[in-house]
Amino acid sequence: MKPSPASVLQHSFTIETPGRGFTEITEHVRRLVRASAVQAGLAHIFTRHTSCSLLITENADPDVRKDLERYFGRLVPDGDPMYAHDAEGPDDMPAHVRAALTAVSVTVPVAGADLALGTWQGIYLWEHRLRPHRRHVVVTLVGC
Amino acid sequence: MKPSPASVLQHSFTIETPGRGFTEITEHVRRLVRASAVQAGLAHIFTRHTSCSLLITENADPDVRKDLERYFGRLVPDGDPMYAHDAEGPDDMPAHVRAALTAVSVTVPVAGADLALGTWQGIYLWEHRLRPHRRHVVVTLVGC
Amino acid sequence: MKPSPASVLQHSFTIETPGRGFTEITEHVRRLVRASAVQAGLAHIFTRHTSCSLLITENADPDVRKDLERYFGRLVPDGDPMYAHDAEGPDDMPAHVRAALTAVSVTVPVAGADLALGTWQGIYLWEHRLRPHRRHVVVTLVGC
Repeated sequence: MKPSPASVLQHSFTIETPGRGFTEITEHVRRLVRASAVQAGLAHIFTRHTSCSLLITENADPDVRKDLERYFGRLVPDGDPMYAHDAEGPDDMPAHVRAALTAVSVTVPVAGADLALGTWQGIYLWEHRLRPHRRHVVVTLVGC
Repeated sequence: MKPSPASVLQHSFTIETPGRGFTEITEHVRRLVRASAVQAGLAHIFTRHTSCSLLITENADPDVRKDLERYFGRLVPDGDPMYAHDAEGPDDMPAHVRAALTAVSVTVPVAGADLALGTWQGIYLWEHRLRPHRRHVVVTLVGC
Repeated sequence: MKPSPASVLQHSFTIETPGRGFTEITEHVRRLVRASAVQAGLAHIFTRHTSCSLLITENADPDVRKDLERYFGRLVPDGDPMYAHDAEGPDDMPAHVRAALTAVSVTVPVAGADLALGTWQGIYLWEHRLRPHRRHVVVTLVGC
């Protein structure tokens, strides 16, 4: 562990989601890291919304994402009569709850000028609304 | 994306919560960012407790926070007989579970010398204990 | 708040978990911070897996971790017939769901050349699989 001076790089992009479900963004973020001069540091990925999430999860078997969707569909049912906030439909408040139970950002180490993800880790934008949405993502690299 | 040298600034403050519920801290953090020389980077907000959370959620309709409260009240009921840890009352262990299901820190990009939050995103301290508490918050800015 | 130039230090270690449950790593991370030249900044701790978590929770009463385990055991039951992904057993998909409901990284402020944790906060690796696993952890320090 020997210190080196750090710098900051920032990039934004948008994802057109097809409605509820997962869109992998690992390669998109990886390209930004590789195109930068950052050898070691942090990659912070942030989505500027409150009804979708960013999640690191298993990237090999698509059934994992299907099961995550089933689990959250049961845990946070659409059309729950408990909610007062339903202006945008039965999936409106459930989307905010799902985002609260997960997160709108993830931070991944950068090492060897690449994302230091494990073999089975992928970065996903998880759309919680039923209809397609345009989602804004900000990637901030801090490193040396 | 061109690199600039990064620096670190840190600031602490306390929030007196009125008991369970949400206290918005967005403007407090925004003022720290604007008062700093940081143009681009990260704002990390951390609370030094295990029975409250920091959450980014919808900032327009107060019903969203009321519905989040209702949802978590049902998901993590107070006085659950399953718990061994109840020294501080029926909301003691539920507060730790709620903090585990959410998080004690959030990280937001700084861009253009301001928080790069989406239009509908606010930063909230979420008190999980029923009684008022004094909560410590540490803001760390890393950027250039 | 006056700015100082930031640097990056990175360290990896492995944890041999005894199966489902909590392994505290606070002192391990604290030693890395104290051995570094970082006075103020951020400590990012990341695990390179999708079936364990990193969690900041109460460090005084072991019943808190037992209750968290009981709560998550009830919220995300093993052997749930809803799942398609069960190649590695009845705890396979539940481990991914638990990791999604919590997180695979935590970020803690560094202040005064030490972790700025609250008195009752500890950092834990939470193994979600029933059997022992070797878990990789990456610590990235960004600060000055």
